[in-house]
Amino acid sequence: MNVADYMQTLGQQARTASRAMARASTNDKNRALIAIAEEISEQRDALRAANAEDMARGQENGLDAALLDRLELTDGRIDTMIEGLHQVAALPDPVGEITDMKYRPSGIQIGKMRVPLGVIGIIYESRPNVTIEAASLCLKSGNAAILRGGSEAIASNKALAACISRGLESAGLPAACVQVVETTDREAVGQMITMPEYVDVIVPRGGKGLIERISRDARVTVIKHLDGICHVYIDREADRSKAINIAINSKTHRYGTCNTMETLLVHADIAESILPELAEAYEQLGVELRGCEQSRAIVSDMVVATEEDWHAEYLAPILAVKVVSDVDEAIEHINAYGSHHTDSIISENYTLARRFLTEVDSSSVMVNASTRFADGFEYGLGAEIGISTDKIHARGPVGLDGLTSQKYVVLGNGEIRK
Amino acid sequence: MNVADYMQTLGQQARTASRAMARASTNDKNRALIAIAEEISEQRDALRAANAEDMARGQENGLDAALLDRLELTDGRIDTMIEGLHQVAALPDPVGEITDMKYRPSGIQIGKMRVPLGVIGIIYESRPNVTIEAASLCLKSGNAAILRGGSEAIASNKALAACISRGLESAGLPAACVQVVETTDREAVGQMITMPEYVDVIVPRGGKGLIERISRDARVTVIKHLDGICHVYIDREADRSKAINIAINSKTHRYGTCNTMETLLVHADIAESILPELAEAYEQLGVELRGCEQSRAIVSDMVVATEEDWHAEYLAPILAVKVVSDVDEAIEHINAYGSHHTDSIISENYTLARRFLTEVDSSSVMVNASTRFADGFEYGLGAEIGISTDKIHARGPVGLDGLTSQKYVVLGNGEIRK
Repeated sequence: MNVADYMQTLGQQARTASRAMARASTNDKNRALIAIAEEISEQRDALRAANAEDMARGQENGLDAALLDRLELTDGRIDTMIEGLHQVAALPDPVGEITDMKYRPSGIQIGKMRVPLGVIGIIYESRPNVTIEAASLCLKSGNAAILRGGSEAIASNKALAACISRGLESAGLPAACVQVVETTDREAVGQMITMPEYVDVIVPRGGKGLIERISRDARVTVIKHLDGICHVYIDREADRSKAINIAINSKTHRYGTCNTMETLLVHADIAESILPELAEAYEQLGVELRGCEQSRAIVSDMVVATEEDWHAEYLAPILAVKVVSDVDEAIEHINAYGSHHTDSIISENYTLARRFLTEVDSSSVMVNASTRFADGFEYGLGAEIGISTDKIHARGPVGLDGLTSQKYVVLGNGEIRK
Repeated sequence: MNVADYMQTLGQQARTASRAMARASTNDKNRALIAIAEEISEQRDALRAANAEDMARGQENGLDAALLDRLELTDGRIDTMIEGLHQVAALPDPVGEITDMKYRPSGIQIGKMRVPLGVIGIIYESRPNVTIEAASLCLKSGNAAILRGGSEAIASNKALAACISRGLESAGLPAACVQVVETTDREAVGQMITMPEYVDVIVPRGGKGLIERISRDARVTVIKHLDGICHVYIDREADRSKAINIAINSKTHRYGTCNTMETLLVHADIAESILPELAEAYEQLGVELRGCEQSRAIVSDMVVATEEDWHAEYLAPILAVKVVSDVDEAIEHINAYGSHHTDSIISENYTLARRFLTEVDSSSVMVNASTRFADGFEYGLGAEIGISTDKIHARGPVGLDGLTSQKYVVLGNGEIRK
């Protein structure tokens, strides 16, 4: 197979399908989502069999346990996919929404209409459920999608693609509006990210290495989701119980997520009174603390933090701890070492809270709330295709709106320019 | 001079200045804009002298009359720059605007705050007044700017840069927040568009060739403004006088602008009754008509239109004319041959108008209005840095909002994730 030709063909088909998708009614799109859910439910055995192939090959190839876990399509995960499709069907359709219609002195009335972006390319790793998540969000937002999952999951993804095609067709939508790349050749990714004539935006989902590689080589806009080095800053005027609850929750609610706190900053004036209690709570939960000199003067059994720790996204029960002299040092540290993802201040001081919100350059800035809230569902977007750490086009959790653009609509009554 | 090192230095300085700019108060930014206007007014003679240098060199180098005209800083143009600075100062500051604050079931309140993008790189051609336009919009939107004008205008641009620096300093803002590239080496552009660590977005202003070249090589998002192949479609149910007024105004109000109509589409049922009158009006205004076979059967002295004419952005008193059988053919033609810029339907039919608005894939779609309205001032944006024909980040006229992003702000009261 000539991979370049193959990808060009997928691209052309996607571009054509995207035109039909842009016109598709909310009803048809929702019917397709429900039909795909039904297909998946009916094809459960076939999906399990295809996934078993992937799992067997993965074991043969010596994939590690974590990767095999992500690869597996359990009954529970199949149920979650089905539920997810129903949830996306229930979301309001962003396409066609007209906002801000205003009259101008010339007499014309001007506003904005939300429209799909066109063709979205999604590049992801081994989790086959991403195939359904990505397909459903692209479909609902009126886009065509080209999905490129990890080669470990190729059999599962092909089986899911068959369900998607049948679901689309049963709703009268073109099957090509969701296409799964059926070659495991790495060249396919290289092609996909360099054909701006057929692909409007790339959403990579995976590790930092994958995303950096794609961003470097892409000739299409990439909605980047790099690392999540999130901070909680406990200010001198923090409410003690809010501070402890939030510091514990932000670190320990889940360790492997991008909105988990990785560095705790504590104001010097409150450090002595609050750090011992926090350290004890973390110890009971099995969290290793790595502290700066001042922190270690208060809690002596912390590991010594090095420069590397301030840059670390542990995704593990490890927490870096630093005592700072004021909010300025906290903000400076966050902007210098953080990843512009999510950062929270714990303070009862109005002026400091306002400064933190304004000056911290992150996609989510919070006052007196756990960093774990940075999430499309918690923010009310209904679903998310990723969390953008970029400022262009979309920032923070990216929901259906992030997969759309807005065009200007002008309603006139024969007005001409003077 | 090592151009790579020079551009890296500009980039670093811009990045540092952008942090101060993001925090700058509305008042300081406005004071800087007014101070720059005052500097320009005081330095009028020095500016004219510097411009005379550029003009003399241009004449020596045999620049054509149109280019020399764009290069010249007349007293009128200097006045316009001064007025423009005052107008931008009078615009509302987009930075810090918080919208959509909503409570979520968890108790947190979530909304969005508008923030600057960071560092904007502007690449433009010979018009020195763009230096002031671009600087003022970047400044007001809290960004740092790196400005790269055409080499023909280097003396004028350096003189303007001196005014900008003094104005910024007198308002207590870092001079590096607006930097003019002071080398005419072409390598500077290559560097500027490939340093994502220092430049967040590139806005090229100039011909299609320049923009295509930059888009191809850039590793930073480019806000593209390609060509303007705009259409007016006169439907069977058009109001006759609106149709004639708008068709004439869209073509003849100004010939050289991107929102000028380049192709007129006319429904077959109305063509015979309306084309002769239109053709006569165009003839009186000196517009050459190039028609399809059906148009020429009605108005015999049209030039024969070829495939090329449907793709043409004439920017001149030439108009392509095509008779279409219905709105479907009109929409299809526009989506296939247009440049997704601005297109207008003239019709009293509600359903067709609604279909046209929905299905035409352009940055501005209009009903019963002249395409000439597609403009930041007419839309009420106050000013524009360009018109994006892209769908990513910004589409249509790009004002101050297009130079900003939004971050999520979360106000809590100690909430943690369950």
